[in-house]
Amino acid sequence: MNSFGRVLRLTTFGESHGPALGGVLDGCPALLPLCEADVQPELDLRRPGRKGAVSARQEKDLLRFVSGLFEGRTTGAPIAFVVANEDQRSTDYENLRDIFRPGHGDFSWQAKYGVRDHRGGGRVSGRETVCRVVGGVIALKILRQVGMEVFAFTRELAGLVSSGDDWLRARERTLFAPEDAIIPFWEKELAHARDLGDSVGGVVEIVVTSVPAGLGEPVFDKLDARLAAALMSVGAVKGVEIGAGFAASRMRGSQHNDELGTDGFLSNHSGGILAGISSGQNIVLRAAVKPIPSIAACQQTVDRHGHPVMLEIKGRHDVCAIPRIVPVLRAMTALTLADMLLLQQPVCI
Amino acid sequence: MNSFGRVLRLTTFGESHGPALGGVLDGCPALLPLCEADVQPELDLRRPGRKGAVSARQEKDLLRFVSGLFEGRTTGAPIAFVVANEDQRSTDYENLRDIFRPGHGDFSWQAKYGVRDHRGGGRVSGRETVCRVVGGVIALKILRQVGMEVFAFTRELAGLVSSGDDWLRARERTLFAPEDAIIPFWEKELAHARDLGDSVGGVVEIVVTSVPAGLGEPVFDKLDARLAAALMSVGAVKGVEIGAGFAASRMRGSQHNDELGTDGFLSNHSGGILAGISSGQNIVLRAAVKPIPSIAACQQTVDRHGHPVMLEIKGRHDVCAIPRIVPVLRAMTALTLADMLLLQQPVCI
Amino acid sequence: MNSFGRVLRLTTFGESHGPALGGVLDGCPALLPLCEADVQPELDLRRPGRKGAVSARQEKDLLRFVSGLFEGRTTGAPIAFVVANEDQRSTDYENLRDIFRPGHGDFSWQAKYGVRDHRGGGRVSGRETVCRVVGGVIALKILRQVGMEVFAFTRELAGLVSSGDDWLRARERTLFAPEDAIIPFWEKELAHARDLGDSVGGVVEIVVTSVPAGLGEPVFDKLDARLAAALMSVGAVKGVEIGAGFAASRMRGSQHNDELGTDGFLSNHSGGILAGISSGQNIVLRAAVKPIPSIAACQQTVDRHGHPVMLEIKGRHDVCAIPRIVPVLRAMTALTLADMLLLQQPVCI
Amino acid sequence: MNSFGRVLRLTTFGESHGPALGGVLDGCPALLPLCEADVQPELDLRRPGRKGAVSARQEKDLLRFVSGLFEGRTTGAPIAFVVANEDQRSTDYENLRDIFRPGHGDFSWQAKYGVRDHRGGGRVSGRETVCRVVGGVIALKILRQVGMEVFAFTRELAGLVSSGDDWLRARERTLFAPEDAIIPFWEKELAHARDLGDSVGGVVEIVVTSVPAGLGEPVFDKLDARLAAALMSVGAVKGVEIGAGFAASRMRGSQHNDELGTDGFLSNHSGGILAGISSGQNIVLRAAVKPIPSIAACQQTVDRHGHPVMLEIKGRHDVCAIPRIVPVLRAMTALTLADMLLLQQPVCI
Repeated sequence: MNSFGRVLRLTTFGESHGPALGGVLDGCPALLPLCEADVQPELDLRRPGRKGAVSARQEKDLLRFVSGLFEGRTTGAPIAFVVANEDQRSTDYENLRDIFRPGHGDFSWQAKYGVRDHRGGGRVSGRETVCRVVGGVIALKILRQVGMEVFAFTRELAGLVSSGDDWLRARERTLFAPEDAIIPFWEKELAHARDLGDSVGGVVEIVVTSVPAGLGEPVFDKLDARLAAALMSVGAVKGVEIGAGFAASRMRGSQHNDELGTDGFLSNHSGGILAGISSGQNIVLRAAVKPIPSIAACQQTVDRHGHPVMLEIKGRHDVCAIPRIVPVLRAMTALTLADMLLLQQPVCI
Repeated sequence: MNSFGRVLRLTTFGESHGPALGGVLDGCPALLPLCEADVQPELDLRRPGRKGAVSARQEKDLLRFVSGLFEGRTTGAPIAFVVANEDQRSTDYENLRDIFRPGHGDFSWQAKYGVRDHRGGGRVSGRETVCRVVGGVIALKILRQVGMEVFAFTRELAGLVSSGDDWLRARERTLFAPEDAIIPFWEKELAHARDLGDSVGGVVEIVVTSVPAGLGEPVFDKLDARLAAALMSVGAVKGVEIGAGFAASRMRGSQHNDELGTDGFLSNHSGGILAGISSGQNIVLRAAVKPIPSIAACQQTVDRHGHPVMLEIKGRHDVCAIPRIVPVLRAMTALTLADMLLLQQPVCI
Repeated sequence: MNSFGRVLRLTTFGESHGPALGGVLDGCPALLPLCEADVQPELDLRRPGRKGAVSARQEKDLLRFVSGLFEGRTTGAPIAFVVANEDQRSTDYENLRDIFRPGHGDFSWQAKYGVRDHRGGGRVSGRETVCRVVGGVIALKILRQVGMEVFAFTRELAGLVSSGDDWLRARERTLFAPEDAIIPFWEKELAHARDLGDSVGGVVEIVVTSVPAGLGEPVFDKLDARLAAALMSVGAVKGVEIGAGFAASRMRGSQHNDELGTDGFLSNHSGGILAGISSGQNIVLRAAVKPIPSIAACQQTVDRHGHPVMLEIKGRHDVCAIPRIVPVLRAMTALTLADMLLLQQPVCI
Repeated sequence: MNSFGRVLRLTTFGESHGPALGGVLDGCPALLPLCEADVQPELDLRRPGRKGAVSARQEKDLLRFVSGLFEGRTTGAPIAFVVANEDQRSTDYENLRDIFRPGHGDFSWQAKYGVRDHRGGGRVSGRETVCRVVGGVIALKILRQVGMEVFAFTRELAGLVSSGDDWLRARERTLFAPEDAIIPFWEKELAHARDLGDSVGGVVEIVVTSVPAGLGEPVFDKLDARLAAALMSVGAVKGVEIGAGFAASRMRGSQHNDELGTDGFLSNHSGGILAGISSGQNIVLRAAVKPIPSIAACQQTVDRHGHPVMLEIKGRHDVCAIPRIVPVLRAMTALTLADMLLLQQPVCI
């Protein structure tokens, strides 16, 4: 439920306005060098307040490992970590205690549990993803042992698609853009939405390089099935596609099939996965990210007793989940692949 | 790996050209009336040779339950079933023993296991999905205990989108169309592709009605994450979206948020799932289905030794995975939801 | 529930008097040579009617693999197998339909499911263990890849303990005895119990040789915890101990601790497992087997409606679960260890 | 690996001499009242320095919940907790860095991971069990919702068996004794072992009352199999038995079978579990606890390089794992049963 993975297993805990968030990563191989400084830069990418994604909340997201390390390396024991919640203004949320905010999980979680921690979304808060990023960095370290790398970048924002292909350096650009040219257009859309008290969405693309052929498990744990679940488990994601994705449904077989030459595949419509197993090509995924539901504009809703309420959400909110969601989706991809890598049997026993 | 679900657990086995396919459904509640005749009509929908999807292979798909039933009802014991493979022409495939067919799993599975049963795709064959349909019918019976129903239909075929909304009766129409008007256009596309020795894809939509609010598990087992994995685990699926899906990424928050009135939600862009938990609205999913990779047209590939081969795939093949895949996607949706329903705790203990 | 193991996963199905029993072994590595003839001798050891364990039921236990094999070797796909039930006399059991037999699961299963297949115990029948033996033989093949072997033999029968230590050849002796001298005494006890219309129990010991150090997983999946669950999951087992076991509770630390010399451990009170992880010494386990509950003598019980019944169980029944249970316990040990072996990560990644 | 349970799932982390130990309990139903004060008394029972179990280490074991609670009740979110390690004298252990202590997991863990945190046993320390006790208290709260209670007491210590049956009040007695008369004898044995620089073991018995019939899952997850694994996963336990246990193997069927009268079962040799499913009688278990391996007496061993070492273990150590292990075994029993209770389906769907 709150755990992810079969042999490399991340369990997360914590609410947005509780004392701390954290997690336990179990199944990490021993002897991997690891310290807080390895993870902090990726956490900083996920933080609000970075250029391009204005949010007033200033969390420090200071990570502390509390188990599983000995003299700078992993021991095979579970790696627990805690990120304290420092900048809490729970009273900001008191007026939301009984109100179901449109687009949030308030209604459905109340229905499930009969109770919810309404402060900042509680467990449903996007802040939960900080723990995924920590796990993802460790997963990436495992993947790099066999040369793999995971890149994530923005393909589309507010309906404006970039055709840039410099995803190798997207991490260094504003908004994780795969080219320089698109950035001012995207920034303009963000500013416009902010002015309107509204929000926008986008599409994130992920590319995994140097993937060994053979990862993935038949039939129900196909690599694409597991990746789809991983990405879709991130709150704002409403769609996932692999390779040609939805466009594949409009192609002919003769167009979509990736032919093979003596030097390997001649195209990559499959997105690096054939029949659920990696083919050795780059894995290519895209995730559709919905607009942030917390908007300043007035919305119609009801409270817990069914009484109508006109709601204007105050406080500190992003205009777009991009770019903050980009490192999260990268982390989920890395966690999935590292789990599959550790599950993999050698071809001959 | 070859099992699906947490408490309602389907394990499948069998190759396309082995003696039989089958499965074991574990965790089904006791006292549910069940017999082969309950399942056969749904298997017949999945069979080749139905109107609108011409395939020369004539399988009877005769199902036999071999355990878990007593005097016409389930006992709580695992329900095992077998579907014999009758119409096997394995020699048709002898020339494919060492060849990697483009768009198939031949290359990746060989890389994973160092061996593969090349006859008709072996374990990777679409024929494996017959077992999912059996499990799905039983799952549907469980869902109906609380009034739920799962509808699946064709939303798009060969790039032609239907705007029909009569999905309640799609099951009775050719190609599972949600309206009459689109059918001749879709049939023409199928005929055209067949004439070209080519294939086409499409988009299947699924609607689940009378869903209780509260299904789904935080954080990694969100209902949409589980459904995405379920659909993506079906061979031909390359993309999954929920509610507004990829279109959501182009909407503003003020458009996408589903407001609530005193009679409930005023729209359903979320697709019936909020923060991973069902909201009580209809669940709405779409799956992108790629074109069938087995085409008559000549394709460039290599054999196991890396030697170039020009391949023309002979034999009996569908032109489109639709409509045969429709009952399979319905089954996977039902299995996912029944598992989640049985996992659900009462709100007060 | 009806599945065992984490990566090497056996799922079993079938009732004593249904059409067939069988199972699916998932996660077996590819390229392992396997055929029915590999398994049949072990099944024959488990069969009734062998010397020393008189039972009138004459099952042939003919095994058929229906998936997962290609040209005599495993493919990595799930290995399904079926053992048909041939010698069924269900009418023998008609008078037991509503009666709770003492010492059987009749009462507790009826309470759990509200229904049970009363014929020969249904799913609860010892006949279910035939599927464990099939899985165990394949697990043994995996273990032998690294030189491991599993021996199981009778340590005690009807209260008579053997101090024999020739367990290497116990398999060839009547009643799996670890020496010749004890056999006539044990046979006399069996004959005596049979004359009385009563039954007896015993203790089975298992020794695993050439175990690599390092198997087992912390903290809850200690190797001894998993082995204890494996043995205790066999119907007649009421106790499990490892190494010195219950005797350890009466030893001093200075006696029980296994000291180490330059050639390794100087004793093996720990039974080859230290803190849940194999030490490289032989693993030594013992399981307490209760007397067979089906006895001819008259017993007091009630029927489903609470009415008192005086019961004399007729039909074909063993006097002791030993020796038939010996191959079953060997199989469960092998399944557990093979699963742990496949889970094992190399020390350096 | 470091997680226990299927739907009520405890994951633990932390080393004896790291900054903290802790755990995450996932799957706990919402709306259960819970605070630190509910757990502290049980933690105090497990602490060293209590009467009857002299140990010099004075841990305070102060528990802090960091997630999953809202206004004094559970929310359905994962309940994380941390117990800081305060009284660490890691330098006490520096001389043990490369030495394999007899009877400890030093050798086997080093073999598994190629590294270990040698300070106080690291992850293998008995201190890990503090997290089990926390989880167990919450599990007990769940069990009490249906009236169940778990009692644990000492049946045997240093070979001296108590025939006392006042286990209802054992918790209040020194050494968890089931009678007053045995206490001075047991204390004398402890004092004697301490004088010798040696240690002793014993047997703990657990009784569960008001168990609903029907708990447990077929075939591999029988209730007794799961309980055996639960108890055996505690470091010092070398044997587990249920009901008559090993004594059952020396009984006749006519003696061992529990007959039924119109008021229920007439005896309880089965220990409350028939064919893996609870019968509604009290569940009765016993666990064999080995003598503490850390003894002052001189022992022969080797270091990591295979060089012989004569070892005298200094520092603060218990003479017997009893009574500290008693609340731990109680906790593991409660966790197992609560998991099974939450897994249980209603008889009629």
